[in-house]
Amino acid sequence: MKRITLLLLALASCIVLGAQEPTLVFSPEVHPDGRVTFRYTSAKAEKVSVVGDFTRRPLAMTKGEKGVWSVTTEPLPSELYHYRFNVDGRKVMDPNNAYLIRNIDEFYPYFIVGGGKADDYMVHDVPHGTLSKVWYPSPTLGVQRRMSVYTPAGYEEGRGRYPVLYLLHGMGGDEECWQAFGRAVQILDNLIAEGRAVPMIVVMPNGNTLHKAAPGESDEGMYKPYWCGSKDGSFEASFGDIVRYVESHYRTKRRASARAIAGLSMGGGHSLYISASNPGMFDYVGLFSPAVKPREESPLYTDIEGKLAAQFAAEPKLYYIAIGKDDYLMEENIAYRQMLEAEGYPHHYNLTEGAHKWNVWRDYLVDFLPRLFR
Amino acid sequence: MKRITLLLLALASCIVLGAQEPTLVFSPEVHPDGRVTFRYTSAKAEKVSVVGDFTRRPLAMTKGEKGVWSVTTEPLPSELYHYRFNVDGRKVMDPNNAYLIRNIDEFYPYFIVGGGKADDYMVHDVPHGTLSKVWYPSPTLGVQRRMSVYTPAGYEEGRGRYPVLYLLHGMGGDEECWQAFGRAVQILDNLIAEGRAVPMIVVMPNGNTLHKAAPGESDEGMYKPYWCGSKDGSFEASFGDIVRYVESHYRTKRRASARAIAGLSMGGGHSLYISASNPGMFDYVGLFSPAVKPREESPLYTDIEGKLAAQFAAEPKLYYIAIGKDDYLMEENIAYRQMLEAEGYPHHYNLTEGAHKWNVWRDYLVDFLPRLFR
Repeated sequence: MKRITLLLLALASCIVLGAQEPTLVFSPEVHPDGRVTFRYTSAKAEKVSVVGDFTRRPLAMTKGEKGVWSVTTEPLPSELYHYRFNVDGRKVMDPNNAYLIRNIDEFYPYFIVGGGKADDYMVHDVPHGTLSKVWYPSPTLGVQRRMSVYTPAGYEEGRGRYPVLYLLHGMGGDEECWQAFGRAVQILDNLIAEGRAVPMIVVMPNGNTLHKAAPGESDEGMYKPYWCGSKDGSFEASFGDIVRYVESHYRTKRRASARAIAGLSMGGGHSLYISASNPGMFDYVGLFSPAVKPREESPLYTDIEGKLAAQFAAEPKLYYIAIGKDDYLMEENIAYRQMLEAEGYPHHYNLTEGAHKWNVWRDYLVDFLPRLFR
Repeated sequence: MKRITLLLLALASCIVLGAQEPTLVFSPEVHPDGRVTFRYTSAKAEKVSVVGDFTRRPLAMTKGEKGVWSVTTEPLPSELYHYRFNVDGRKVMDPNNAYLIRNIDEFYPYFIVGGGKADDYMVHDVPHGTLSKVWYPSPTLGVQRRMSVYTPAGYEEGRGRYPVLYLLHGMGGDEECWQAFGRAVQILDNLIAEGRAVPMIVVMPNGNTLHKAAPGESDEGMYKPYWCGSKDGSFEASFGDIVRYVESHYRTKRRASARAIAGLSMGGGHSLYISASNPGMFDYVGLFSPAVKPREESPLYTDIEGKLAAQFAAEPKLYYIAIGKDDYLMEENIAYRQMLEAEGYPHHYNLTEGAHKWNVWRDYLVDFLPRLFR
């Protein structure tokens, strides 16, 4: 038995590796004042720059010791940013950044500058909810489909019932995108912990009925995701399958005052038509940069006037529309809102800076959540 | 109300986008016979090749129409593979592959060749379990920590109790890596659906006590993950916190015959010392390419002889060791197994081809699961 004792030798260990760590290249490095330093190692590159959503023009990087190119930005406003390097004319990922998020078919290195609104997008030492990837049967579509479900901290320990927000994505998205660029899990954890939002279940389904699940999670093999979705009414028509699953598998409050539906872009359109087709089902509706106009024909999209009349006759507590001034869907949103106003349908309108992008949708979620279930 | 009717115009829709799809570049394309075609678009590149774990030397790609470089492999054996392009001497991701998995701090484009063992790694149209990301309190470490929990299909609908496998990762890993390169969710879904494994709960904690959670999920900010972990006994010492959480929050069978622990590399070492320190707790132990020797000092690692004597006195049903012939930890594993044999401790030994890599760990999981809880 001495043999095993002899094996008790310290080898290259975690601590030793830790000591080596300072020789690693760190990129991006977010400084406390909001400046950000990018670094990229290449001995033979001739021109390196960083392009990202925080700068209108590429930031040239300069070559330093050991072939490490770098540049430091001015202090950036608090936000989640993404970027790429341009190395001799070719877009390149940052090999030193292990933080990537996917949008549709592309991965983006990202970083967060805190000290302001983006503190809501960061993980803090607060009680955390649980995020589950769940498969539900959709008899309407004849398949199993995948969705993400957030249950708030305390759900597993308690016996109480919770209100439910159904949170929908846009074209090309899937059941994972509100958790990636959307930062929904962090936003929910933080707002609930601070009492800015009430504890709620948040259901994030896959609104693209062409696919059962996100890339890598579907039995359709390695399909190529693209900027596509479901505007043929099939998602709206099958939405009841989701509600039935959620209300029979989670401790939910089953009444209009405890149901909300919201979505961005295509998901805003889904939220519009689902809530209009089910008057009295949702007391809270959120349309974020919504694709108001149907893109295809479906019985779901006919007689919208009559449907809205029934929906507003049930007096929803909040009908929320948010859009950025530079959104390419502005025109159809103006027309839709004029119609709501002509009919005297009460709604909350949040006109903001910005375009059809994730940065405004995170803002809208943070603005919308505190208004729910009060 | 005519206004809204006027809005019902068909625009560029999903179907139209679908019709454009064939003009997209697809890469990789896995052919039915197992050949794989890679494609990369670059008008100005001078030399492009593909490097991956399916080829010893780079495969040169040739330039075709519209600047699309391509190469097709010979038929590949069924497996999950990863690769990169080499473009004029620079490693580049495949911009047409939306399928990436992370290992520690690096992302790898991957593909799966089916028709053999890798069918177990694919999503099939079978009943699916639920994967949850759960935070549990660790009083021992004084923090909340994150783990992944798989509950099998039917768990949510039923009332029955389930056995539990604790499945641990290696150095540098986190609570997500058995689901990435490990394909644990697909393997479990498929083996359970085919009756090759019994329905079970599988708990995949974060064995690196330096961190609370995987990159992007921790309140430590954007720490840089590296090839590090916990070999100071702190994970083993705090493991009871996980069991307490799991056994109080899930419908588990609370007896040795319904508990298994297994892990790869560092996680194999964790499994060894946790099971040895808790005789009679686990009837099933799996050491996959285990790091047998402690790398640091801890009371957990002293008197291993006495601990093993107590563990084997409780007569575990399966003590499983698997390792590849080319594994760099072979020497310490030979010594450990000699000791087990000298003491007459029964164990199952699975000596395979291969090295210290994910391809053998997937094999070991597929080999190990059917042996549990029968």
